Amino acid sequence: MKDLEKLNKDALIYHQGGKVAISPKTKLDNENDLSLAYSPGVAAPCKEIQKNPQLAYDYTSKGNLVAVISNGTAVLGLGDIGALAGKPVMEGKAVLFKKFADIDAFDIEVDETDPDKFIDIIRAIAPTFGGINLEDIKAPECFYIEKKLKEILNIPIMHDDQHGTAIISTAGIINGAKIANKSIESLKIVVIGAGGAAIACAKMAKQLGAKEIIMFDSKGAITTNRKDLNSAKKEFATDREINSYKEALDGADVLLGLSRANILKATDIENMNENPMIFVMSNPDPEIDPLLARQARPDAIIATGRSDYPNQINNVLGFPYIFKGALMVQARSINEEMKMVAANALAELAQKEIPQDLKEELEKIHNRKFEFGKEYIIPSPFDTRLKEYVSNAVAQSAINSGVARKKNL
Amino acid sequence: MKDLEKLNKDALIYHQGGKVAISPKTKLDNENDLSLAYSPGVAAPCKEIQKNPQLAYDYTSKGNLVAVISNGTAVLGLGDIGALAGKPVMEGKAVLFKKFADIDAFDIEVDETDPDKFIDIIRAIAPTFGGINLEDIKAPECFYIEKKLKEILNIPIMHDDQHGTAIISTAGIINGAKIANKSIESLKIVVIGAGGAAIACAKMAKQLGAKEIIMFDSKGAITTNRKDLNSAKKEFATDREINSYKEALDGADVLLGLSRANILKATDIENMNENPMIFVMSNPDPEIDPLLARQARPDAIIATGRSDYPNQINNVLGFPYIFKGALMVQARSINEEMKMVAANALAELAQKEIPQDLKEELEKIHNRKFEFGKEYIIPSPFDTRLKEYVSNAVAQSAINSGVARKKNL
Repeated sequence: MKDLEKLNKDALIYHQGGKVAISPKTKLDNENDLSLAYSPGVAAPCKEIQKNPQLAYDYTSKGNLVAVISNGTAVLGLGDIGALAGKPVMEGKAVLFKKFADIDAFDIEVDETDPDKFIDIIRAIAPTFGGINLEDIKAPECFYIEKKLKEILNIPIMHDDQHGTAIISTAGIINGAKIANKSIESLKIVVIGAGGAAIACAKMAKQLGAKEIIMFDSKGAITTNRKDLNSAKKEFATDREINSYKEALDGADVLLGLSRANILKATDIENMNENPMIFVMSNPDPEIDPLLARQARPDAIIATGRSDYPNQINNVLGFPYIFKGALMVQARSINEEMKMVAANALAELAQKEIPQDLKEELEKIHNRKFEFGKEYIIPSPFDTRLKEYVSNAVAQSAINSGVARKKNL
Repeated sequence: MKDLEKLNKDALIYHQGGKVAISPKTKLDNENDLSLAYSPGVAAPCKEIQKNPQLAYDYTSKGNLVAVISNGTAVLGLGDIGALAGKPVMEGKAVLFKKFADIDAFDIEVDETDPDKFIDIIRAIAPTFGGINLEDIKAPECFYIEKKLKEILNIPIMHDDQHGTAIISTAGIINGAKIANKSIESLKIVVIGAGGAAIACAKMAKQLGAKEIIMFDSKGAITTNRKDLNSAKKEFATDREINSYKEALDGADVLLGLSRANILKATDIENMNENPMIFVMSNPDPEIDPLLARQARPDAIIATGRSDYPNQINNVLGFPYIFKGALMVQARSINEEMKMVAANALAELAQKEIPQDLKEELEKIHNRKFEFGKEYIIPSPFDTRLKEYVSNAVAQSAINSGVARKKNL
């Protein structure tokens, strides 16, 4: 509790004056510079873009610019706190884009909760940007909003709360299965939570090849005899009758927790299959204390959302490089192939030998060993190889899947 | 023509990759920084702002952040080229805000020409920003859009094409009258043009105390017997019958040209009153060549929109400092008092003795003398005193007129 108070206090000091600044990319030292940057010189690029809109990628910042857009309806674990109160999160996301992928990202807080109006606002301001990262929008509206925008606009769009978490946890599942020597097809997966991230994780696991997925929402297991399911949940309804987490987890290989703190007991997980993957991703506190989980299952592969345990499922491993890859080749969208390629690239990178310098640095930062295995299935956010490795893979996938305007890297 | 070709070529090279970048304001070097900038630390400022929205000025970038928003319907002299093609201008404006007033400004291009929809989009994204600079929106819609937004939102909003030009030309009129030893009330003013800037210039001259204003639109003099006038133009309709520029300018003290290149002949201005103010502001080419005007009226006080002649009416003298002043005291609006104070502050600054260092620098930049008089009625954009002098005056005016949230500088 003391620690949390200190964190809050430090965070408020850290946030004084905000986190995002604008800086000119070009020289503005004298009258000649001004005559190029603004009137009369600026008319030349305007006219070129008017003739050929594609040239906006050459003559404006659009090509490396991502909007982080939220209406503040599902901010962190805080819920619907409104557009303005969500601004610190969106600014934070914007600076992470810059820090990790050198993408210029700008936060837009939209005071609009009606999905169709929200969609129209984003459509209207979209010419400004090269890509749109939707953020902290509540389910189930988030599904409709993302789907519609992808239909209307021809720039990369991704709701990170859904797909970011899905991509990183999928990378974890790929490597967890490899370490446990299990086939993806054989995995029995239990998803606790049925919000945007949970649905996306389950969908991606299915795409990966998983056959058996059981999902829980706040009312219990999602079964075909329930009458209260939205269409997203229906996709994962099971015919089995399941009355508890423990029952669902009996013999399961993977637990994906995307719900809330401490809802699982040690006894719930004790009968999971051997070398179980226990990914308890609720923030800041997981569905079960990782130390308790370890006690109950010494053979488990455990991942959390926390930076103070091994295997942090951190979205920052995904969104900067997925957008980077998409922007590199002026992709018209971020499609399923690109997301799966990103997950695979993350998994591969964790399997690779780390150059000695970097390894020492990462071991110092995280105060643990970086050898591929149960305690290292997902790259560190500070792994400097991520930017090139994941971005290039995503860009190549955009080309291969036919959504890239540029045809080579 | 050779020069213009070179300018265009240089401008296209200058614009490669765009002009606006985002930069983090805070340290992002290690895991601790990240835990403050983003989850979990970022929850603290979010919760504070949720409790007290005013704290967004403390914990986010909002307080020093201006949106440059356009729908691209009246870009420079290029007309309705659309949102995307206008982006280089809006980016240019954003970097001028940074360069001259250290304001973080971000451009938003809005693909929406319906005034009410455009208004609603701006309303919705307004929580993001501390102020809104409307730009390059065509008349007469621009009047309605600005008026409505000022009613709905409680942050500084200004359509710079209207008021920027008006403020700078008003500063010029104040000093021109002083130099010619004429009272403002006695000035006979002819405005050529009836777009957003022309209407705003005329309104401000009226506020200043001018009694006689004649305005021309593309169909001729605006007279009370015309049936085709919008309400903005009606305000300036005259009972007199006027059949030519020359007739209107006979005995006039001030000519405000806000129309297009070379529409005036030397004979049109030859019968103006003594020491006439000839402000021909069409860009890039004035309503009459300044050298021709000088020949016809050696006693004139001439101003243009060009940087290669004395007395440049350049909006960059206004918007950075007006917004700066407004943001300094968290003004709820930019009101008429603040705009008039800005005009007066600009006029005063031109009257003041320039410190020797700065004077030498300005004379070097502009290659002419800086002594208050007919060739120097308006400060140079590179006058480093502007930021403090004009911004402070505007901020104090916001306090005095009751629109400031902060009560002292």
